[in-house]
Amino acid sequence: VSRPDPEWTPAAVLEALLSGELTRDRALAALRGCYTEDLGFARIDHDRAHRRGFPEVVFGPGKTPAQVREIFLRLAARNPNVLCTRTAPDAARAVLAELPEAELDAETGLLWTWRDREVRGVGEVLVLSAGTSDGVVAREALLCARIMGNQAELVADVGVAGLHRLLGELERIRAARVLIVVAGLDAALPSVVAGLVDRPVIAVPTSVGYGTAAGGIAALLSALNACASGVTTVNIDNGFGAARAATLMNRP
Amino acid sequence: VSRPDPEWTPAAVLEALLSGELTRDRALAALRGCYTEDLGFARIDHDRAHRRGFPEVVFGPGKTPAQVREIFLRLAARNPNVLCTRTAPDAARAVLAELPEAELDAETGLLWTWRDREVRGVGEVLVLSAGTSDGVVAREALLCARIMGNQAELVADVGVAGLHRLLGELERIRAARVLIVVAGLDAALPSVVAGLVDRPVIAVPTSVGYGTAAGGIAALLSALNACASGVTTVNIDNGFGAARAATLMNRP
Amino acid sequence: VSRPDPEWTPAAVLEALLSGELTRDRALAALRGCYTEDLGFARIDHDRAHRRGFPEVVFGPGKTPAQVREIFLRLAARNPNVLCTRTAPDAARAVLAELPEAELDAETGLLWTWRDREVRGVGEVLVLSAGTSDGVVAREALLCARIMGNQAELVADVGVAGLHRLLGELERIRAARVLIVVAGLDAALPSVVAGLVDRPVIAVPTSVGYGTAAGGIAALLSALNACASGVTTVNIDNGFGAARAATLMNRP
Amino acid sequence: VSRPDPEWTPAAVLEALLSGELTRDRALAALRGCYTEDLGFARIDHDRAHRRGFPEVVFGPGKTPAQVREIFLRLAARNPNVLCTRTAPDAARAVLAELPEAELDAETGLLWTWRDREVRGVGEVLVLSAGTSDGVVAREALLCARIMGNQAELVADVGVAGLHRLLGELERIRAARVLIVVAGLDAALPSVVAGLVDRPVIAVPTSVGYGTAAGGIAALLSALNACASGVTTVNIDNGFGAARAATLMNRP
Amino acid sequence: VSRPDPEWTPAAVLEALLSGELTRDRALAALRGCYTEDLGFARIDHDRAHRRGFPEVVFGPGKTPAQVREIFLRLAARNPNVLCTRTAPDAARAVLAELPEAELDAETGLLWTWRDREVRGVGEVLVLSAGTSDGVVAREALLCARIMGNQAELVADVGVAGLHRLLGELERIRAARVLIVVAGLDAALPSVVAGLVDRPVIAVPTSVGYGTAAGGIAALLSALNACASGVTTVNIDNGFGAARAATLMNRP
Amino acid sequence: VSRPDPEWTPAAVLEALLSGELTRDRALAALRGCYTEDLGFARIDHDRAHRRGFPEVVFGPGKTPAQVREIFLRLAARNPNVLCTRTAPDAARAVLAELPEAELDAETGLLWTWRDREVRGVGEVLVLSAGTSDGVVAREALLCARIMGNQAELVADVGVAGLHRLLGELERIRAARVLIVVAGLDAALPSVVAGLVDRPVIAVPTSVGYGTAAGGIAALLSALNACASGVTTVNIDNGFGAARAATLMNRP
Amino acid sequence: VSRPDPEWTPAAVLEALLSGELTRDRALAALRGCYTEDLGFARIDHDRAHRRGFPEVVFGPGKTPAQVREIFLRLAARNPNVLCTRTAPDAARAVLAELPEAELDAETGLLWTWRDREVRGVGEVLVLSAGTSDGVVAREALLCARIMGNQAELVADVGVAGLHRLLGELERIRAARVLIVVAGLDAALPSVVAGLVDRPVIAVPTSVGYGTAAGGIAALLSALNACASGVTTVNIDNGFGAARAATLMNRP
Amino acid sequence: VSRPDPEWTPAAVLEALLSGELTRDRALAALRGCYTEDLGFARIDHDRAHRRGFPEVVFGPGKTPAQVREIFLRLAARNPNVLCTRTAPDAARAVLAELPEAELDAETGLLWTWRDREVRGVGEVLVLSAGTSDGVVAREALLCARIMGNQAELVADVGVAGLHRLLGELERIRAARVLIVVAGLDAALPSVVAGLVDRPVIAVPTSVGYGTAAGGIAALLSALNACASGVTTVNIDNGFGAARAATLMNRP
Repeated sequence: VSRPDPEWTPAAVLEALLSGELTRDRALAALRGCYTEDLGFARIDHDRAHRRGFPEVVFGPGKTPAQVREIFLRLAARNPNVLCTRTAPDAARAVLAELPEAELDAETGLLWTWRDREVRGVGEVLVLSAGTSDGVVAREALLCARIMGNQAELVADVGVAGLHRLLGELERIRAARVLIVVAGLDAALPSVVAGLVDRPVIAVPTSVGYGTAAGGIAALLSALNACASGVTTVNIDNGFGAARAATLMNRP
Repeated sequence: VSRPDPEWTPAAVLEALLSGELTRDRALAALRGCYTEDLGFARIDHDRAHRRGFPEVVFGPGKTPAQVREIFLRLAARNPNVLCTRTAPDAARAVLAELPEAELDAETGLLWTWRDREVRGVGEVLVLSAGTSDGVVAREALLCARIMGNQAELVADVGVAGLHRLLGELERIRAARVLIVVAGLDAALPSVVAGLVDRPVIAVPTSVGYGTAAGGIAALLSALNACASGVTTVNIDNGFGAARAATLMNRP
Repeated sequence: VSRPDPEWTPAAVLEALLSGELTRDRALAALRGCYTEDLGFARIDHDRAHRRGFPEVVFGPGKTPAQVREIFLRLAARNPNVLCTRTAPDAARAVLAELPEAELDAETGLLWTWRDREVRGVGEVLVLSAGTSDGVVAREALLCARIMGNQAELVADVGVAGLHRLLGELERIRAARVLIVVAGLDAALPSVVAGLVDRPVIAVPTSVGYGTAAGGIAALLSALNACASGVTTVNIDNGFGAARAATLMNRP
Repeated sequence: VSRPDPEWTPAAVLEALLSGELTRDRALAALRGCYTEDLGFARIDHDRAHRRGFPEVVFGPGKTPAQVREIFLRLAARNPNVLCTRTAPDAARAVLAELPEAELDAETGLLWTWRDREVRGVGEVLVLSAGTSDGVVAREALLCARIMGNQAELVADVGVAGLHRLLGELERIRAARVLIVVAGLDAALPSVVAGLVDRPVIAVPTSVGYGTAAGGIAALLSALNACASGVTTVNIDNGFGAARAATLMNRP
Repeated sequence: VSRPDPEWTPAAVLEALLSGELTRDRALAALRGCYTEDLGFARIDHDRAHRRGFPEVVFGPGKTPAQVREIFLRLAARNPNVLCTRTAPDAARAVLAELPEAELDAETGLLWTWRDREVRGVGEVLVLSAGTSDGVVAREALLCARIMGNQAELVADVGVAGLHRLLGELERIRAARVLIVVAGLDAALPSVVAGLVDRPVIAVPTSVGYGTAAGGIAALLSALNACASGVTTVNIDNGFGAARAATLMNRP
Repeated sequence: VSRPDPEWTPAAVLEALLSGELTRDRALAALRGCYTEDLGFARIDHDRAHRRGFPEVVFGPGKTPAQVREIFLRLAARNPNVLCTRTAPDAARAVLAELPEAELDAETGLLWTWRDREVRGVGEVLVLSAGTSDGVVAREALLCARIMGNQAELVADVGVAGLHRLLGELERIRAARVLIVVAGLDAALPSVVAGLVDRPVIAVPTSVGYGTAAGGIAALLSALNACASGVTTVNIDNGFGAARAATLMNRP
Repeated sequence: VSRPDPEWTPAAVLEALLSGELTRDRALAALRGCYTEDLGFARIDHDRAHRRGFPEVVFGPGKTPAQVREIFLRLAARNPNVLCTRTAPDAARAVLAELPEAELDAETGLLWTWRDREVRGVGEVLVLSAGTSDGVVAREALLCARIMGNQAELVADVGVAGLHRLLGELERIRAARVLIVVAGLDAALPSVVAGLVDRPVIAVPTSVGYGTAAGGIAALLSALNACASGVTTVNIDNGFGAARAATLMNRP
Repeated sequence: VSRPDPEWTPAAVLEALLSGELTRDRALAALRGCYTEDLGFARIDHDRAHRRGFPEVVFGPGKTPAQVREIFLRLAARNPNVLCTRTAPDAARAVLAELPEAELDAETGLLWTWRDREVRGVGEVLVLSAGTSDGVVAREALLCARIMGNQAELVADVGVAGLHRLLGELERIRAARVLIVVAGLDAALPSVVAGLVDRPVIAVPTSVGYGTAAGGIAALLSALNACASGVTTVNIDNGFGAARAATLMNRP
């Protein structure tokens, strides 16, 4: 079989089996490869896009540049949009050398291909940040939400220390379908926002601050105990996770 | 004006003003009462149903029976469905003495009126519990989800210690629109479920267990660090909060 | 010397020495008693009212009824206003049996004499509570502030889940000289209030809630990391401590 | 309209509207700019000086040099005194290149303009430090208090391990109107100082030390549980926050 | 051999072997019993008084009344002074029924026999308590120190909120050979005391207080980070442990 | 089919299908029941004994007496040995009323049937306890190990405060195949034991003690950081879990 | 005696004594050296291989290169297989310069000699990793298990986010005798694996992740509270410890 | 007065006053300087050697090289032995440039002058370390104990994983008057040592290890909960503090 591996989809395999292009044994092997690809150090889940609506997202830390490159390329061979979070610079270089169409956002370490730009979400995903210092995490959420097929926008620096900044954007906030609220320190913003809308609010606590704020535990506990109900939360600084959840909430 | 307070909606007030039934001063006072009702110890937010899709939910603990009764009755005077969580038995009795149509679930302490039974959610909210001991929290989520206008069902005791129990319900799980996964101990279930579906998964960590499990911190941390992305979490044992968030995600 | 102990003030002692009413030795002993009274299990600091503006406040827990009674009576013998916090019922009964003029607030366990009702503070101490369930702690702050010589008022249940409740009281809030903000759960209220005023805000985190809220750590961390600057905080549930600090801030 | 933005105050706008210098639309836009200035990554709260007595203070960490420069310059265009805390060296250079009148304190990272040097506080803000190693935080508190319009002084290294050092300064301590007590390790100093005065004491726990002291949690807990009442606390190492609160307490 | 077990000391066994009173086998068994006595649920260490200067001290919690009684009686059969800490009332009754000479202190739960009242320590062990509420723990330390052969005294309620109370006892404090300082809340007292003496200071943090004080962690961290060097600490509320350590420090 | 459900094993079902006793549909239903039994509130995993060597063990807390009874009876219908841990007294009574052969250990709350008493383990499981107060947890481990088919013994009260007690049992300790070491406080025993043997050591930290010991975190951390390698640990007070793991290690 | 120290085994010493090659004094000294070797900074336990089945394993951190070299060489003089974990590069160079046969794995910092390659374990030790980022810890476990005499293999990247990856290896997993499961984040894998096998499962929580995952506490708590019984755990990132325990479980 | 400041002792001042060498004013100033020396950033406590038996010890971290140099020189002008802990290299260089007789131990960062080498302690202070990696902390304790006037020795690497190493030194251990036991990981050594002696044992938990050991909390909790009574503890890694306390315990 001379066709490159990634071209074998389950349907193509069955067709080739029936047409005699593939023997039973080769068909079985090809089928197995449609679902899982074992690189020794990694076992790529090629079924994930089908099962979950978006392919496996690579988590950069703890992987060598060679590992990141290999996993990214294999995923890019079969999926239009591929994402790697918190990519180390040398790992990004390793991928870009092989796949010049990939893009890197240096501030967040996001690395991606974005070939399929169709918007599939039913409404807007709106990312709010409490302060300028929360900007990197908010940016990660924004970029991920877009690459995953949402119309997404950012409203920056509307923390509650100056309520009029937030209230001045009330119309946009009420028009969104899913809200991602990125906040550090005491993370009072998710509560205040949730009290104003009838759409899901995802809190992203950040590790901004010092003393008891550093690490983001204060912000996380605020999010978990938001006095306005309907807030759910993700891990500290996890902009990607919020975007992933928002995408699922925004599906038709 | 002989009409009882709760009958004044903002629209009714304006109409009565134009018709001369109300003077300007009385109209202003009536308008104010449409939005907030000050009981001294409590300031009821009568605008909340309009703003957020469901009226203020009473949090039982820390309130005297008289306070719970008063707040509950005032809310029930203006809203078809009213909810009080973790109601103490004597507080529940105080409400039921005045409002026999209210219902109490003794196991969870939920107290409610449920006059408007229309289902407004677009899909099913499915509550999964990892073990029988997580049952009370799962039940709180289930009942709240229903009273808030969702079609909701429960699949109990499908923890990962016996994977076939979970996999045997795969079809139902994949058909749900929002999943609430209630789990204590190591809370491995949210990750496993999220890995199988393309819908939002809300984790509810429970305080089931002893030693390092008691208090639910172990389960909470698992939910925050779920290796399958797209999971968001609420506070420990907060079945109500999960149902509230699910309702928002399930809106048309 | 037949005069009862409490009548000896330092000035009276010196006068009696000069007039020959007291010998040197008796004067020295009387002087010592002006500053400290040793009951064996307690060493009352009778100089405190002079040094700090209010006499020693008795902390009820961990003391036997007999100890509370003895300390309270000794203080009441020399000071117009005496305060005991978190008094156990049997300790309160022991005091009231001897000193019927004392008053007990059963909800908070505050026990006091309030003979000197002059208002000495320069402005109003305003206590705000986020929810009805924070009421006991707010009440402790309110009562203590009054007994310590302040004009003090309470605005209850203005948590941020319904911002219009808070904004509806903006005028009163801006008129206060010191603000005590009592809040549990995510304690978003201190930040929001501090962002609106140019007066000191003292946060009192409460242990209201369950899961990660119980114990009040979430609320405490919010107070410490309030995104609006100028907030200082006291210990969880410490309404008395906030009133004490507010009194010092409110002095001429 | 050729006048630079910062010259538009709300009063000037209304006047220009009446005089015909501005149309209604331009007046509305100019008014909006009086209160909030949106830089995309930041939303400056120009109303804060009016509302809270001092303009927004820039928090350095997590912002790029370009962001710090931009925000600082916009604030300096409208306010005499501007402050940035924990400024990174390259961010400070970026500001100083544009605004040579600004000053940097290298030890604390404070960056400021201090055009209005009028003292507005009614008494002295006295900063006490327990040890020489607490010096940087004490210095931040001292400088901020001065720039915010207080007469402020420092008494260094008076920790309780040698009580005579503290008692030797008793007169100065009792003369102050607000006391900021900066202490790491076991932070015994706030309690001892508060026991001696009838003015508010703000504790600033520091992260000085190692083992269980590092991070400042031990000192923070001491401050929260000070056995002398009337102590309030701010976050660990937060000299700025203490100065901000002291300024509010020191207002006429 | 008709002599009761406890009469066999190692020396008596050897003598009886040489005199022919015991065979080799019985001598071996008797010797074994000199060092360890196996009750099935407990293995009493009869060598401890010889090795460590005081016999095994029974820890009351978690043992049934029958277990406490049995262990206590076996120890009392061979040692003049025996101690059980935190004895439950029914366990104390079980012992007292068999051994009427034993004494119980109801406040602390200490149960003891004190036949040998010789003072062996070289100086005074002085117990200081910060507040009356620390009294139970201070009392445990005082009683244990006496029963273990020390001259021991208590100076109660000398916390730093009123320094003159402490300074008024300076002479006694400086005369002691070992100081046990019992303090809850911020536990500032150990530092202040250690700064005044040249003898070892043992801190006993107590769980007095509420909010972040409850549990005694705040006090423990203060003790570990005492800014005056030379302080060592024991576990929270562990008055017995402090007395045990003080006894070892007070040996000739 | 009149045969009671529990008699259907997978093999019996297939045989009955082939013999015509069962139709295909009834065979499918019977097969499903061999693996999982859905009681609504619980989903019993009847395959577990086959898969894991011992049937599902019921965790008592959080279940109603009726739930415990139902689950226990269903398990006992198919398995010779059934176990419920931490059974509440009323739940135990509910089971015993239906199944008089069951046995309850009141101290630990273990409830069991033990019909199959064959010893299957290849060597001895030896349970060591550091102190008499660790006895309840040690007993849970001992009983569970026996009911799961091991020869198991207990050596009580051999904590390191008197090393000769431990060293006196060295021979028995070295002869065991798996060691379960139950210890609270500083849990020094697992390290010392592991340093002496070449067999696996399972540490069970207990919540014995007060102050920083209470809850068992101190003991757990000791177990995790045992300086002798080869120690693994289970949750605090989890005697059952240790016995379960020991059983797996002791299989042929 | 000219024979180098390491040649003296206890048996050789006794023989030399009897043959007259050694005097009594030299024999005593040689015997002492068989068991312990005192290097001043270290006291090597040469009896450990005999007592525990494998010689002392050197813990690299906190030791100077000279110390590591000396200890390693002394151990290698008497034992075929020697291991040092987390070796710093300069310490490794110091050893390799003297002992070129030693091998270093740069990724893990393992340094070893592996002269005796006989497999002594009775079955396979199978190491599973949840993700590629857990690879370093899994590799440490794998290499250690092999050097300690086990047949050991690795199955990488089978986390539960894609269950089919795990289920595809079920046969290998069920065939193993001991399973080491390496997982970070929510560490759901140990529970799922333990639910499928009847062999001991050792969990190794890793510090992979960020926010609340960093440090590995989330993963550790999951392992301790695994809902499938029979899991024991080792310290975070402790691949070596898991291999050591697995070796003991895998002995005949 | 031409005599350099440090020559003025209180006695010399009084003598000079009486002899007319000093006026009253100069005598008062000189007296003040005998007790406290104010450097602006530091307030040296020159009375400490008299009061506490050893002069103030400088804590290096958080001080600039110039500050360390100045404080060290002032202390060295009046005291024979001066100590600075955790001195940064540049601070040490600054002191050594001025005071070549000072000595630096690079491993621990201790810097000292040691002119008075008389041994004043009544017995031996014995420092035990559990492992070679605890060496730096043990060395700090050893050096400090010697410079403070004790005969002190070190017994290294006697952790409980190989009990014979410890038991082989039993005679030396029992002969010591004070024992300092330095241990990381599970810190089992203090318990075992305390169980063998009748002298005070000071535990120094160290931050050796990784995972849950890092930071030394596990070791600290073990020390606080030592099952052998009579152990007191100091902060993590605080070798100096242990030596200071041992010196006080070792005084005649």
